[in-house]
Order: sequence, then structure tokens, then C-alpha cells
Amino acid sequence: MKKSFDKWIAVDWGTSFFRSYLIEKDQISDSIQTKDGMKFLEKVSFEKTLVKLIEPWLENDYKIEVLASGMVGSKQGWIEASYQKTPCNLNRIEFISPTIKDNRFSLKIFSGISQSNKPDVMRGEETQIAGFIYDNPKFNGSICLPGTHSKWVKIENGNIINFKTYMTGELFEIISKNSVLIHSVTSNKIKKNELIKAVDEIFEKPEIFGNALFQLRADDLINSRGSEIYKSKLSGYLLGLELLGSLEFWQKKDIVLIGNTDLIDLYEYILHKKVNSIKKFLSKDMLLKGLKNFKNKLYKVT
Amino acid sequence: MKKSFDKWIAVDWGTSFFRSYLIEKDQISDSIQTKDGMKFLEKVSFEKTLVKLIEPWLENDYKIEVLASGMVGSKQGWIEASYQKTPCNLNRIEFISPTIKDNRFSLKIFSGISQSNKPDVMRGEETQIAGFIYDNPKFNGSICLPGTHSKWVKIENGNIINFKTYMTGELFEIISKNSVLIHSVTSNKIKKNELIKAVDEIFEKPEIFGNALFQLRADDLINSRGSEIYKSKLSGYLLGLELLGSLEFWQKKDIVLIGNTDLIDLYEYILHKKVNSIKKFLSKDMLLKGLKNFKNKLYKVT
Repeated sequence: MKKSFDKWIAVDWGTSFFRSYLIEKDQISDSIQTKDGMKFLEKVSFEKTLVKLIEPWLENDYKIEVLASGMVGSKQGWIEASYQKTPCNLNRIEFISPTIKDNRFSLKIFSGISQSNKPDVMRGEETQIAGFIYDNPKFNGSICLPGTHSKWVKIENGNIINFKTYMTGELFEIISKNSVLIHSVTSNKIKKNELIKAVDEIFEKPEIFGNALFQLRADDLINSRGSEIYKSKLSGYLLGLELLGSLEFWQKKDIVLIGNTDLIDLYEYILHKKVNSIKKFLSKDMLLKGLKNFKNKLYKVT
Repeated sequence: MKKSFDKWIAVDWGTSFFRSYLIEKDQISDSIQTKDGMKFLEKVSFEKTLVKLIEPWLENDYKIEVLASGMVGSKQGWIEASYQKTPCNLNRIEFISPTIKDNRFSLKIFSGISQSNKPDVMRGEETQIAGFIYDNPKFNGSICLPGTHSKWVKIENGNIINFKTYMTGELFEIISKNSVLIHSVTSNKIKKNELIKAVDEIFEKPEIFGNALFQLRADDLINSRGSEIYKSKLSGYLLGLELLGSLEFWQKKDIVLIGNTDLIDLYEYILHKKVNSIKKFLSKDMLLKGLKNFKNKLYKVT
């Protein structure tokens, strides 16, 4: 069976989501996003799920290459693609190929990266970072990937030197949904001035955090100033803790933000006066560039 | 119908639990603890629930007095017993009596306390504090009530001057149960040396918090050092944030701890070298003393 070189499939398979793109002649010709995240799947059902999702893109005459990164390569995922250690060159990311029964495609799952001193791990973000590095091989500075587990990553000459992960997005979600604040943060809107005030409060005195959270509930009970304010402040307190903790990565540095539009705009809004320069990129764009980079490098090696 | 003076019922009706004590001649002669917390009950089912629970203690010849404090008096509870404001004298706590259909008992639900500047609220803790003040009317110092919502309270001459609530216990629970740490903090044991190390780390740099949490997960993935360590450190990070944020209440002060044995012992262990003096009391004992104090004061007033 011939291989299809002009056509390949990119997969971003995370804890909660499955995202996939059909690439033809370097362009996205189709895409899928579903909730078939790693955490909802049994080990035995990964291939079945993948085939079901990408079936419309498969052909009987060609073996198409599927390149994936993210939690699909974790111990709890399809197959473990062991971590590469920092400092780590982003042009040499290894992959593992699980045995595939379906002969219409092959699959490569790329490794994550781990750090021993100040233990930390990433899976998926390294691919987005590689996408940025592909176009900016001489970048020296920090990359931030805000989200459920926000990451701050120090980059030098195409290498990840070190990084720190913050549970900012996850804390925001579980405090909003599972704590006594549930009744006070129902709004979906953010007031930027309230958020910035909360960031500043934390910058001044980070130890107010635990009390500041309860104050939101108490203020709501006493003054009922509207859940938009409390949600904005909750977000600000969490972001403030992350930013103060990652000062070494951004203060007077060149930084790159990779994420979804709302988050990278928000981080830019908070940080733009405090850093040397900011550039913003979308996760999806960087993921595709990163996987393409890995794909090209692989072909060179073999 | 005659009133029974020698016999009364004390009720601690919180968000998650119902606790009640039958007091005869100043001694507990029976007690109940169930999970009929305020959050599980509809407004209309409070009386039915109370009657069902205390039925064995009711008599047809005497109207017995039931004294309650806690979230049962909140907006979401049986009937709202409005907040009294700080500074607040603990010998003058007001009560509200809902209409009771059953003529074998009367019910008084005591007010909580609120603070306008730096918004905060308490319901139930004021009764325990009143219990301590009953025996120690001249105490000047701070009272800490560790728990789901830990409270630090400044006391002067029988008055609550101000207080701060920390979501320490609740954050510990939701992070343990609802975050990515769920797999790493399964142990029920605490290693005190690991906990103290984590407290010290936060005292030195509170802004590490968000990253320190994720490091527990990463360390488990990389080094698998056992969930006892990660649980102890999670506890230490949260306690560290609370204690650093409440420094003004305990540093070189006389402090009183009111809570369950495990928690007050733990707080004593962390704080004993840093404070002027520590005394420890059980919540239940202080609650009963507090309600008895309220009961006596009420009889004097009417």
C-alpha cells in the first residue's frame, strides 16, 4: 500500500477533548472536535474511537499518517510515550507507535517533557512550543500557555530550559463549581477593572488568598454586588498568584503567549506594561506547525 | 403546659451535619449526630426533621426548650436570624423563634455575626466563642476555630472586635476530590515533618502556591514517593497560606484553639513556638457552654 505524503492527520488528544485536523497540501481541509477525551476512555477503546472519528478521512488505497500529541501518550492514555527530560531540544521529540489493526493509517504519539528538579511535566504543550520555535529558532525568552494547567516555559536557542505549571484554570473551575462560592460566581462575564484590582491585591500580599476567597462569599451575602464582580475577583486572585509566582519568566522579558483568544488577550492585558515584548499565537496554529515540524524531522531521520 | 427548666436541648445545625444534645441537670444525658445538614433540606421540612430526630426526648407534660445555632439560621436555612455586626458583645446574641406546630417544644435560633469592613460572616462559631468567654470573661487575644472555613477572631473584654475566615478545609477537600491531585493524595495519614516543610515553604514564598500544588502531581508521576507525602504537603501549603495571612492574630499573642481534637492538636503543633500561649478546647464543649450562656442571659432579660 502506498503512503500518502501530501495528506496527513494531526491529532490533539487531551484529558477532556479530542481535536483532529485533516491536512492536505499544507492546508486544513477538515476538522473535528469532540469530547472523547482521554479520561473518558478505556485503554482498549482508543483505536475504535479514533477510527470512528477519522473514518471519513481514511482511504483504501493509501496509508495515511496520523500524528498525535497530548495526554493520549500518558500512562492513563492509549500507550505511554515516555517523558523526555529538560533541558530538551524541541527538534528531537521522540514518538511511539501503538499496534494498529486498521491498515488505512499509521499512528505516531509524541513524548511529553518532564523536569526532575522542581518536578514538573507537560504533554501536548511541547508540540505547540515546537510550532513557535519552528518559525523562531533563535527566540530567547519565555512562552506562557495559559489554561487548565498554565505553563511558563523558559526557551533558549530552541531548547526548553525549565518550566513551571500552575493549576490556575483548574482551581478556578473547582472553586466555582464545588465550593461555597458556587452561588456567588454564576456570571459568565469578567469585569477587567475588578480582575486587575484583585491581581494587584495578590501582588501586594499573596497570603490574603484564602481569606480573599471567603470575602467574596461574605460580600455577596452582605452587599449582593452581583456575581460578575465576584467571578472577576476570583479570576484575578488566581491569576495574581500565578503571575507573582512566575515573575522570573516574564519580568522585563520577551514573552510569547500561546492559547485561546480570550486567555491570551487577558494575559496580554495584565502583562503588557510589565514585560519587554509580547507576541500572541493560537494553540491550534502552533499545534499544527509543531506536528508538521516533528513530521519533517522524522522523515529526515529515517 | 409547664416549662421544663432542668431539661433542655442544644442543637448545632450546620451546612452538612445535625448535632443535638439532651441536657438534664447540666449534664449531657443523650446525643444525636446525623447528616441532616441544612444544605440537604427544603425550607418546609426543617420542623418535620427536627421532630423526627428529637422525638424520643419530647414529653407530653412539659414544653421543652430547644436552643440552636449554625446555618439553620441562614437565608437558606429554616428562618433567617439576621447577623449582628462587629464589634459585637457575646453576652447579647439575639434569637428568632420560628412558629412551631408541635406544642412539646419551643425553638430559639441564635444570630450569626457579620463584619462590614473586610466583609465576613460566621454562624455557629459565635456560640462556641461565647462558651469560652463565659468562663474567661477577661480574655484578650485571639480565638482560632479551624475547619472547613477556618476563623481567626480577635477578642477584647468579651467582644468580637474583628475576624477573618479562610477556606482552608474546603480547598483541601475540593482539591483532593475534584482536581488532578485526586490520584496523588489518596492517603488518610499525615506526615508532620512534610507538612511543616510545606508550611515553611509558603511562609517564605506564598506565591509558589499554584505551582507547588501541580508539583505534587508531577512528583508523583516521576518519583512515586507515596500519597502520604503529597497529602501532607497539600495540607501544609493550605495551612501555610492561612497562617501567614492571619499573622496579626497569633504572632506573639495569647491564642485559643476551638475545634476537633485532630485539628487543634495540629494547629498547636505548628504554632506553639510562635505564640505567647495556647489553650485548646473542643467545639462540642464550647457550643454547649455557649448555648447555656445564651439561655441564662435570655431568662434574665425576659
